[in-house]
Amino acid sequence: MLRFFLIYTGLLLSVPSFTQDRTPELMPVPRSIKSTAVRYRITKNFTIGVTGNPGDRVYKEASRSLRRLDNRMGFFFKQGNITTKDNNTGASLLIEVKRPAELKLYEDESYTLNSGAKQVKIVANSDLGAIHGLETLQQLLSVDGDGYYFPGVEVTDAPRFPWRGLLLDITLHWMPMDVVKRTLDCMAAVKMNVLHLHLTEDQMFGIESKVFPRLHEVGAEGNYYTQEDIKEVIAYADQRGIRVVPEFDVPGHCTSWLKAYPELASVKRDYELQRYFGVFDPSLDVTKDYTYEFLDKLFTEMSQLFPDEYFHIGGDENTGKDWDRNPDIKAYMQKKGMKSYRELETEFIQRLLPVLQKNGKKMMGWDEILRPGVPHDIMIQSWRGTQSLVEAAQKGYTGLLSSGYYIDLIQPTDFHYLVDPVPANTVLTAEQQKLVVGGEATMWTEHVTPETVDSRIWPRTAAIAERLWSASTVNDVDDMYRRLDRISLLLEGLGSTHIKNKGMLMRRLADSYDTKALEVLVDVIEPLKIYERNAGDTMYTVFSPYTKIADVATPDQKVARIFRKNVSIYCVTRDALLEKDIIEHLKLWKANHALFLKLIKRSPVLNEAASLSENLAKIAEVGIEAIGYMNNHFSPPTVWKSKSLEITKRAKEQGGRCELQVVTAIEELVSAAVK
Amino acid sequence: MLRFFLIYTGLLLSVPSFTQDRTPELMPVPRSIKSTAVRYRITKNFTIGVTGNPGDRVYKEASRSLRRLDNRMGFFFKQGNITTKDNNTGASLLIEVKRPAELKLYEDESYTLNSGAKQVKIVANSDLGAIHGLETLQQLLSVDGDGYYFPGVEVTDAPRFPWRGLLLDITLHWMPMDVVKRTLDCMAAVKMNVLHLHLTEDQMFGIESKVFPRLHEVGAEGNYYTQEDIKEVIAYADQRGIRVVPEFDVPGHCTSWLKAYPELASVKRDYELQRYFGVFDPSLDVTKDYTYEFLDKLFTEMSQLFPDEYFHIGGDENTGKDWDRNPDIKAYMQKKGMKSYRELETEFIQRLLPVLQKNGKKMMGWDEILRPGVPHDIMIQSWRGTQSLVEAAQKGYTGLLSSGYYIDLIQPTDFHYLVDPVPANTVLTAEQQKLVVGGEATMWTEHVTPETVDSRIWPRTAAIAERLWSASTVNDVDDMYRRLDRISLLLEGLGSTHIKNKGMLMRRLADSYDTKALEVLVDVIEPLKIYERNAGDTMYTVFSPYTKIADVATPDQKVARIFRKNVSIYCVTRDALLEKDIIEHLKLWKANHALFLKLIKRSPVLNEAASLSENLAKIAEVGIEAIGYMNNHFSPPTVWKSKSLEITKRAKEQGGRCELQVVTAIEELVSAAVK
Repeated sequence: MLRFFLIYTGLLLSVPSFTQDRTPELMPVPRSIKSTAVRYRITKNFTIGVTGNPGDRVYKEASRSLRRLDNRMGFFFKQGNITTKDNNTGASLLIEVKRPAELKLYEDESYTLNSGAKQVKIVANSDLGAIHGLETLQQLLSVDGDGYYFPGVEVTDAPRFPWRGLLLDITLHWMPMDVVKRTLDCMAAVKMNVLHLHLTEDQMFGIESKVFPRLHEVGAEGNYYTQEDIKEVIAYADQRGIRVVPEFDVPGHCTSWLKAYPELASVKRDYELQRYFGVFDPSLDVTKDYTYEFLDKLFTEMSQLFPDEYFHIGGDENTGKDWDRNPDIKAYMQKKGMKSYRELETEFIQRLLPVLQKNGKKMMGWDEILRPGVPHDIMIQSWRGTQSLVEAAQKGYTGLLSSGYYIDLIQPTDFHYLVDPVPANTVLTAEQQKLVVGGEATMWTEHVTPETVDSRIWPRTAAIAERLWSASTVNDVDDMYRRLDRISLLLEGLGSTHIKNKGMLMRRLADSYDTKALEVLVDVIEPLKIYERNAGDTMYTVFSPYTKIADVATPDQKVARIFRKNVSIYCVTRDALLEKDIIEHLKLWKANHALFLKLIKRSPVLNEAASLSENLAKIAEVGIEAIGYMNNHFSPPTVWKSKSLEITKRAKEQGGRCELQVVTAIEELVSAAVK
Repeated sequence: MLRFFLIYTGLLLSVPSFTQDRTPELMPVPRSIKSTAVRYRITKNFTIGVTGNPGDRVYKEASRSLRRLDNRMGFFFKQGNITTKDNNTGASLLIEVKRPAELKLYEDESYTLNSGAKQVKIVANSDLGAIHGLETLQQLLSVDGDGYYFPGVEVTDAPRFPWRGLLLDITLHWMPMDVVKRTLDCMAAVKMNVLHLHLTEDQMFGIESKVFPRLHEVGAEGNYYTQEDIKEVIAYADQRGIRVVPEFDVPGHCTSWLKAYPELASVKRDYELQRYFGVFDPSLDVTKDYTYEFLDKLFTEMSQLFPDEYFHIGGDENTGKDWDRNPDIKAYMQKKGMKSYRELETEFIQRLLPVLQKNGKKMMGWDEILRPGVPHDIMIQSWRGTQSLVEAAQKGYTGLLSSGYYIDLIQPTDFHYLVDPVPANTVLTAEQQKLVVGGEATMWTEHVTPETVDSRIWPRTAAIAERLWSASTVNDVDDMYRRLDRISLLLEGLGSTHIKNKGMLMRRLADSYDTKALEVLVDVIEPLKIYERNAGDTMYTVFSPYTKIADVATPDQKVARIFRKNVSIYCVTRDALLEKDIIEHLKLWKANHALFLKLIKRSPVLNEAASLSENLAKIAEVGIEAIGYMNNHFSPPTVWKSKSLEITKRAKEQGGRCELQVVTAIEELVSAAVK
């Protein structure tokens, strides 16, 4: 068990001889997998054949899969784009598909994958299943002394939940098309199937409307998706078996709408695009018929653009204050006997329903839309927690979980991984449980730019994808981290910038090719979590620099995580190899501060992290002393403990909107030394 | 002088204390620059003001410039997007512009930049000049013990040549929009002003035609720019002062056209998109009226889409063989008394001219279009050499140089840098010299993908940009390399992937986070140059893997270049510090092969580079022996020399389509030891 941790400590990591099967490195873990002793040996003559009644998706995905394999093995496969002519049942990889899928909720996504010595075979009812099988195959690629092979396996697979989504907010920071496309590639790789685009906000209206062109002309500053762009995104997603659900957030979160069409506003004022982040008062005047005529036309236009059956109307965080400020709205409420603005919201949602229904859409929204009288085909997206979903399901409503999957909050992977939409102790009946259709990770983009967004999404979202696909019993955190390491590398190979941009950001920040001292620090810090980054005297805006140390730092830093784990084990076992590794880290950190100070001279922007670097050096020294005492087998003086804990206490203070992630480990060493 | 080289050797590089002015690190070097003793100190209150009669370009570029500065210094500047309201003459940076430019050849691009203790001021006749001034300012940003500042300078600047272009081929490998945009950002940073898009080829027709939609529907496989995309590119380029010149290559290089519209073909056959690279026979039938009617409609459509006054019709590498195969064409030529297919080409070009003229366009083409009777307003792009330009200019034709700027051929930066469109020994008169309007680097994309294209363009193209902007006397190669190092980092910060993708490509290739052994090898190899990569048994196609060691390797490897230089100096001076550095490299290389073999076990695709790695270890040992003999001051046995040269000879053989770049340095050591 100990060695297991050791090989992940980075400093001890060398190139392992990698000859065992990689089946355990699949993510998400399939429903069932049986290994056999044979191996399918891959050569330059590798081909793909497709039979059955598949649609366009499979041919395109099979072609892409073939190129991806070739890109990794470099064989120069002779087969070009795969077409209906490629129906040789003797192909190296044979894909059998019964029918093209309808891309909608509850569609069959199951598949089987069998690899023997002579052929690999993927069989699926729908092409969606076949596409998932191709992704599993990518993850199966293995190496031994004779070269590349697919291990012999019998996989039977299907998802636990039918809705496995990612919300991408493109309004708090604009996300260009290439971000969307590489996100879709990575989502497909971990079998996610819904991209939820949060398209409108106080800060911008991010999509072209031909019916109300001022929405994007005035409500955005040149950054918005054209309708052609949206068609391209939908086609790109469709090919990968991913649905695209649009969100138009009403009646709050809509300053950009009001700048473009002030006649929609509850309060007359000079509307400008919001530059700060938060919850603001501007709101649609939902007592005016004009507002409904407007939304009718806009949502009809957008319903035609987005083929998905769900249409997200937001509905969250309307403060009601602007309604309160408008005497006409107050009079309207009084006349209708409404006691709170929540009742007016209920009416608004009820009046919106027919607009969606006549366009063949089902309403989706945040918890707030679950109001008296809404029909049972709406979809509740819960940002409040599983309890909301339980209440919804008990009333017969479908819902999906986002609370616990807020990846913008910089929490560690295992935190998200262990959040289950239907936990083991659920009070829901089996029938009610079926109403919980899955979950969505949410990538709100207050504090990310196209340069950093990938490092907030990946690799953590792969663990959420597994939670939503694999059995609830697949929940071993250590095993998840082991597999995540490999999947992270595969995701980079597919286009995600979550690894490579770290180097770029460090070079720019240090203004140097030599970023070693910065890297040592960044390896053990994380940006402030939850909503702490906004606190203090830093007021972030849409045009603030997101190029600083808190942007280089990433969630769930591996070096720190493994160090903490190793220290915990070491305090119990006093293992000599672990001690060596821990001491090496401590020495590195102690020596790093002098180098970091030199870097600051070159790049003063790093000054905000000086205290972090100094504290790291100081706690490293404490750690070295603690181990010294432990090895001498006698207790340190009392003053040493209090002095040391004073140092670790100070080391918990933020610097550059980041925190050291190894302080608790040092405290553990101090405790162990004192014991 | 010696120390100068030492600080660039990488192994010796630490973080330098960087307090001197960075004025010498400008690229391109301005026409005139005078340093003063003062410094403009930058604080969080930094603002930009704009006065005069500027257009939209300056406001947008000033806003972008402000954000770029803030991204580097992290001050959280309060000023948002700069608008006409920002006309405070007391702003930190004041930009004075007389008029918005017309984006065309010979437009005024001059500017002055004066930074004093209290203000920085950019003054320009046209907004193009102001934009160039903003880029100079980005490069001036400096640091001392008190923080960030702009050094006191008086810059007077204007380009030597008015046409400073980059040809981006998007047909041999498709280049998505994000590649084009980041290329434009980087071009602007080094003051280039023409993006030449090579849009059509045997392999694909890369742009939407609404008049002849089969061109992109059948002539491409889903990858083409829509007309909306093109408008976006043109607007993006325009904001940065960059013209966009389209190329529609006729009458050869047009298999994709013929697949879509076979009635244009000289020979009836089943046309499929070309999968290989090279020069092929398919050609338009230029004897048919239909062809001219077709080109008239298409070029009229495209003339309206592209506002630039130049329209590139290619005209190159038509083999004439398909004309020869068609009896009707032969009869036509006979009837007209044409003796060779060149005469038919001449007629073709003459018949095309009115099509362009009626659309207000000037014809541009490769050397081949310079035919009897063409008007003097055409533009010759020379792939054949300066002699073509001399001949053109002597006949009164304008032209620009691309020969010598073929950056796809993997030649070192200094080779391109020293190619001058009007060399010092030119035979042209002063008037004739004016007809040579500049040059274009050419990025043909046979062997690059969106993942690798940046590393072929940058940083080398920055040196070509300097050749085309700065005085001919700015030609010190060492100084160019010194400045290029810094510009390369700035270009990465702007979005170029030329540095960061190397890490990604290595991780994917090694299938590991630990790529050290691969990196050591890659640092001293380069892909085969000129057209050698195509030779041997490797037939590249449009779908071949471009993810191998020859794709990770980049042109003009710095570690190898500096090692060669250091060895040359050491052989003369026997400097002890240099010797230490050389020995350290040799030991690293010698030890690396064992590590590289381990990597191959994990990732067999690396096997093709095993011989390179082994040869590197062997020549490193020879080098160590040579230095040993040199230090012992006696001659090695004769057999040692012949044995050693046998080893270095073998080390010149390619592996994985790459070559070691330090072999000549080892030979130099051998010679010095034997002397």
